[in-house]
Amino acid sequence: MNADCIFCKIINGEAACYRIYEDKYTLAFLDVSNDVEGHTLVVPKKHFENILDCGEETLSQVMKTVQAVSTHFTENCGYDGINILNANKEAAQQSVFHLHFHIIPRKKKDKIDAWITANMQENEKNSLEKLCEKLKL
Amino acid sequence: MNADCIFCKIINGEAACYRIYEDKYTLAFLDVSNDVEGHTLVVPKKHFENILDCGEETLSQVMKTVQAVSTHFTENCGYDGINILNANKEAAQQSVFHLHFHIIPRKKKDKIDAWITANMQENEKNSLEKLCEKLKL
Repeated sequence: MNADCIFCKIINGEAACYRIYEDKYTLAFLDVSNDVEGHTLVVPKKHFENILDCGEETLSQVMKTVQAVSTHFTENCGYDGINILNANKEAAQQSVFHLHFHIIPRKKKDKIDAWITANMQENEKNSLEKLCEKLKL
Repeated sequence: MNADCIFCKIINGEAACYRIYEDKYTLAFLDVSNDVEGHTLVVPKKHFENILDCGEETLSQVMKTVQAVSTHFTENCGYDGINILNANKEAAQQSVFHLHFHIIPRKKKDKIDAWITANMQENEKNSLEKLCEKLKL
């Protein structure tokens, strides 16, 4: 519980939400932006900033809920596909610093583009071979 | 193993890849598009189409690798943030039908936008209250 965190306030009932699903470890609720029909957030009840500081058990619990809600949306609610998005740290456009996954329900021929916009010039690119040497774990 | 699947071919060594990480259940390798520096895909070694047909154990194994590679990129490789993206079904812009998560490494003030573009008009929107009634699980 983080006193300044809006998602913690939703989890403990201090702030309202449109609840889609809840279990012991996680909560799923509609994103208030209402930018995409059914845009849903899945959060762990315990406060973590993002996937870089939560344990793997927490991440598993969150993903189990992501999977259950996504399956419900496609099987029972008339959606044709699902995008999952997640941002970690401000440089990645994270805006609320409580771990959350976005579920974006999709319909055939909707007006949504869920792909990234990248503007790297060819001359800025390292070869994949060099990148692999630098980045391999 | 699906004979027509490019990711299955990479996993069993029939096709090459720039490998970032591998364990018993998962493989992480650079996306050949090279559109974003360090753009990496994480896949389960067993063939599933997406998160709608894989078991929760497979999803946990994949996310554990997503988390390990993301942590490595931010702690050891000079990146300032990470986006995670995943598409399920053609309507959600899935193009390779073997479950995969995209890891998009980010830097401060890079030229990338990892957010969705949604063009829903105000008059097309249902209220969150109605949507919640329709979608809750």
